[in-house]
Amino acid sequence: MRCLARLSSKALLVLCSLLALLSLLLWTRCSQRPQPAPGPPEHPGVPDSEEASPQDAPRAPGMPGSAGRAPRYEEIDCVINEEQTVKGRREGSEVFLPFSWLERYFQVYGRIAQADGGERFEFSHSYSKVYAQRAPYRPDGVFMSFEGYNVELRDRVKCISGVEGVPLSTQWGPQGYFYPIQIAQYGLSHYSKNLTEKPPHVEVYETAGDGNGNGNGEWTVPKGCSLTTVWDKTRLTGVKQFSCPESSEGVSLELNNGRDFIISFDLKLLSNGSVSVVLETTERNQLFTVHYVSSTQLIALRDRDIFYGIGARSSWSTLTRDLLTDLRKGVGLSNTKAVKQTKIMPKRVLRLVAKGRGFLDNVTISATAHMAAFFAASRWLLRNQDERGGWPIMVTRKLGEGFKSLDPGWYSAMAQGQAMSTLVRAYQLTKEPAFLGAALRATAPFKLPAEQRGVKAVFMNRHDWYEEYPTTPSSFVLNGFMYALIGLYDLKETAGEKLGKEARLLYERGMESLKAMLPLFDTGSGTIYDLRHFMLGTAPNLARWDYHTTHINQLQLLGSIDDAPVFKEFVKRWKSYLRGGRAKHN
Amino acid sequence: MRCLARLSSKALLVLCSLLALLSLLLWTRCSQRPQPAPGPPEHPGVPDSEEASPQDAPRAPGMPGSAGRAPRYEEIDCVINEEQTVKGRREGSEVFLPFSWLERYFQVYGRIAQADGGERFEFSHSYSKVYAQRAPYRPDGVFMSFEGYNVELRDRVKCISGVEGVPLSTQWGPQGYFYPIQIAQYGLSHYSKNLTEKPPHVEVYETAGDGNGNGNGEWTVPKGCSLTTVWDKTRLTGVKQFSCPESSEGVSLELNNGRDFIISFDLKLLSNGSVSVVLETTERNQLFTVHYVSSTQLIALRDRDIFYGIGARSSWSTLTRDLLTDLRKGVGLSNTKAVKQTKIMPKRVLRLVAKGRGFLDNVTISATAHMAAFFAASRWLLRNQDERGGWPIMVTRKLGEGFKSLDPGWYSAMAQGQAMSTLVRAYQLTKEPAFLGAALRATAPFKLPAEQRGVKAVFMNRHDWYEEYPTTPSSFVLNGFMYALIGLYDLKETAGEKLGKEARLLYERGMESLKAMLPLFDTGSGTIYDLRHFMLGTAPNLARWDYHTTHINQLQLLGSIDDAPVFKEFVKRWKSYLRGGRAKHN
Repeated sequence: MRCLARLSSKALLVLCSLLALLSLLLWTRCSQRPQPAPGPPEHPGVPDSEEASPQDAPRAPGMPGSAGRAPRYEEIDCVINEEQTVKGRREGSEVFLPFSWLERYFQVYGRIAQADGGERFEFSHSYSKVYAQRAPYRPDGVFMSFEGYNVELRDRVKCISGVEGVPLSTQWGPQGYFYPIQIAQYGLSHYSKNLTEKPPHVEVYETAGDGNGNGNGEWTVPKGCSLTTVWDKTRLTGVKQFSCPESSEGVSLELNNGRDFIISFDLKLLSNGSVSVVLETTERNQLFTVHYVSSTQLIALRDRDIFYGIGARSSWSTLTRDLLTDLRKGVGLSNTKAVKQTKIMPKRVLRLVAKGRGFLDNVTISATAHMAAFFAASRWLLRNQDERGGWPIMVTRKLGEGFKSLDPGWYSAMAQGQAMSTLVRAYQLTKEPAFLGAALRATAPFKLPAEQRGVKAVFMNRHDWYEEYPTTPSSFVLNGFMYALIGLYDLKETAGEKLGKEARLLYERGMESLKAMLPLFDTGSGTIYDLRHFMLGTAPNLARWDYHTTHINQLQLLGSIDDAPVFKEFVKRWKSYLRGGRAKHN
Repeated sequence: MRCLARLSSKALLVLCSLLALLSLLLWTRCSQRPQPAPGPPEHPGVPDSEEASPQDAPRAPGMPGSAGRAPRYEEIDCVINEEQTVKGRREGSEVFLPFSWLERYFQVYGRIAQADGGERFEFSHSYSKVYAQRAPYRPDGVFMSFEGYNVELRDRVKCISGVEGVPLSTQWGPQGYFYPIQIAQYGLSHYSKNLTEKPPHVEVYETAGDGNGNGNGEWTVPKGCSLTTVWDKTRLTGVKQFSCPESSEGVSLELNNGRDFIISFDLKLLSNGSVSVVLETTERNQLFTVHYVSSTQLIALRDRDIFYGIGARSSWSTLTRDLLTDLRKGVGLSNTKAVKQTKIMPKRVLRLVAKGRGFLDNVTISATAHMAAFFAASRWLLRNQDERGGWPIMVTRKLGEGFKSLDPGWYSAMAQGQAMSTLVRAYQLTKEPAFLGAALRATAPFKLPAEQRGVKAVFMNRHDWYEEYPTTPSSFVLNGFMYALIGLYDLKETAGEKLGKEARLLYERGMESLKAMLPLFDTGSGTIYDLRHFMLGTAPNLARWDYHTTHINQLQLLGSIDDAPVFKEFVKRWKSYLRGGRAKHN
């Protein structure tokens, strides 16, 4: 018993020590509280009212000074405009407000991010970035910041048409329609990427021989099919002739490329037929096949087969397809205005399969084929300009409450301008007069008012404006107007003094209007998309941040070709709004 | 030893228990941390860009989901727009930002306030309040919300002139000048207070007898001075005649009023002389004396003597003075544009002292004397209207960079309008034709452009506007325009169809312009003070919150006399901006 007592006495001593240590530890941890913010915040004094507006009572309330004691960290009810209560935190005289409230209230952005091994919170006033204007803008150079655009990946692009080679929009109608603005932007973005990106590696799989036995691909020809190398008199080169019943497996060319996904080949069909490409995908390594079929069907999906109609192709043409886009648009196929989201990606291009009767040549795979996309857009614009010089937009467009609907067949100054920018570039590359001629004819709608299917509006009887949407009443959409001006600039610079005279006059009058009217789009903390508030007597239609940065990008471009100070000043101020800057108040 | 062991074993047991208890306590306290905010914040999705502005990359960054563990409370660096770092607090996925940063960044307001026994934080988006529009506005009713104005207390009012009975402004020049807008507002605020406040108690100290021996004050007449009651034939009443050398103590009337501070008396001087009022003040109970002297000096301060010149006063007139204002303007006297701040207040009116030779009658003290102030303003306007119908403003006014200076002698549509509102009210009370005649003549400058010393501007060749500041180029100040319209309304309503025809036409054309141009002043989150941004190509001159609420108060007033929906809609939206509301973005 005594031993036990002695033993337990020792044990108790150890226990005591341990508990004391634990107490000390807990005490220390409990006291480790964050430092208080440095002193009370400054009081932004409200300036004394001018005679005109003498509200005498109100003064900005200030924060009481911090007490001498160490600040406690505690929850505090924060009453917002006497309307709602959010839970904040308080340490002495400093109050902390939760970002989850703040981001909704002020429409700002933030996230916890990794930095230097630790975490930090990154707050941003806006989500959109302005591009640096490199060199002065040129009509044969990069178009604004379009090298960063990926038109075909937008979910309102249903797919790239196999027949036309250009995107089909579903923005204002799920049925899909060819939207000249989207098509021009598709062309201009690829034109710009071509200037800013390195030339791609091109893997050649089949050239049907160079006469020395080189350039033949690894073909598999099943029973009942034939594949021969023949001389094509029109092209002065050997080509592969294939003949396979539709019911057969088809002749198949081994590709096995796991790096790049732009396939290109020359094709001439003698009957109905198809060229299909078999893809290994990220979707549990499933195989998907994209079929390019001699029909006019736009796009279809059956299980893991995706179909694009490419027309009859009864004479030679080159088909260049982005297999990534074709796969994703097929898997995401939908009857709505937006392509369904999908994570699927191609992993490997396994092989090409041809059926029916026809000829193939120059089968290649590369990372990009920007000029093919650019010329697809340029030639679509050539083919689809009407007798009035316009690209009629075959969808109903209702800009908003208070505006009459634009019925299918309306023209857009933005479409006309972006088409000019595209066509002028095609002309500079090819010197084909058709491109310049189309661009010159595209000025015609600029001279007619909306009632006569033109795109011209006049602000307050004084300032000529070119309407992205020639609504009644006029809407004065800013970004579309500036794109129209850029198109006119491209054209007048390219066409020369005589041919380009009309474009020059339209450009100069438009620039005058722009310089005079820019302030009407400035809210002091952002920009306004159009002037519907003035035309309809409503609230201003504020531009969201990506339109705001578009405005800035456009002004930067215009400022590089016109040294009026207004451009530099507005760019500077409008940029500052992206970081929370504001115009002064009185 | 064994006993000790046994004893210490017991002691150790107790110690162990105590330490265990302490550990438990500390553990519990340590764990009592503030609750985390409910889940991760919502992600405001950025809508997909329209064709016109297809920035493809940016998406609003979101917050990562909260981890399953109990959130720790810790400091976190918050990087603001990649520009500065502030110390925030973090609990799990919620981040708290310090209000000391937030108030400067967003220009908002907040303070810790007592409520229900505890403390809470009160956040406000703006510091200015809108007044409720009571009944529909009437030309003989309260003027807008002016019953809340205290013109004379503004620090840009040097003092109330003893000669003129109206305020003298130092807003744009420390020398001081009579500013018709300030004078009209002084009149209109007192007119409005007279309608909204209870009639004051009036303490009568001297009426020089009613013939029955009543109404005589408690006078002290030192040696060498005389004081007698005499009959005044022009006034048909007894009055006090006094005669005292300037070097004497003067005859003195006991007042001893600790409640009210507006003194009033009828005075006629036969020589140079003065009436002084001795005040006990809050300044260590020091005595200050306010001297009303037969000179034209504006104001002077020597030690604890304050001097106001009141002119010769050689015929009967009533002098009504707010001793609180007179004391504070004297003590705060300064050579700058603003009266110095002072905490001094009168505590008790001890006595009145008269020197020189003259007559006194009807000495009273009351809490207010609004009609005296109103008529002082109205009669000043009558006396000071010039042959062109205007009240020339005798100070140089430079509205801002880009505008020519207005040279002394310029007219203001706001001054003309506020004078109309004042004069029409004086006419309705007195039926004196002079008041109406002056108001009618005041329309003349509305018909002339700035180059001809008029106040009319025309916006874009279309909309007539009445300029608070008839600058070159035009400035289109909104609040001044609306005050001018209210004046024209008051006049056309009061003058009747025939006499008021001109005012009616001016009013109607102005209202048309207002309805058309209001949207140009709307930023989607506040309002713009004027249109200088459009006229000069600069940043918008944002209206601070008290001008914003003035705009709203004016629109509410106009909406009560014109049922066009635009007024109700704009009032509703502009009110919402005070609580952080915003117009929609696209």
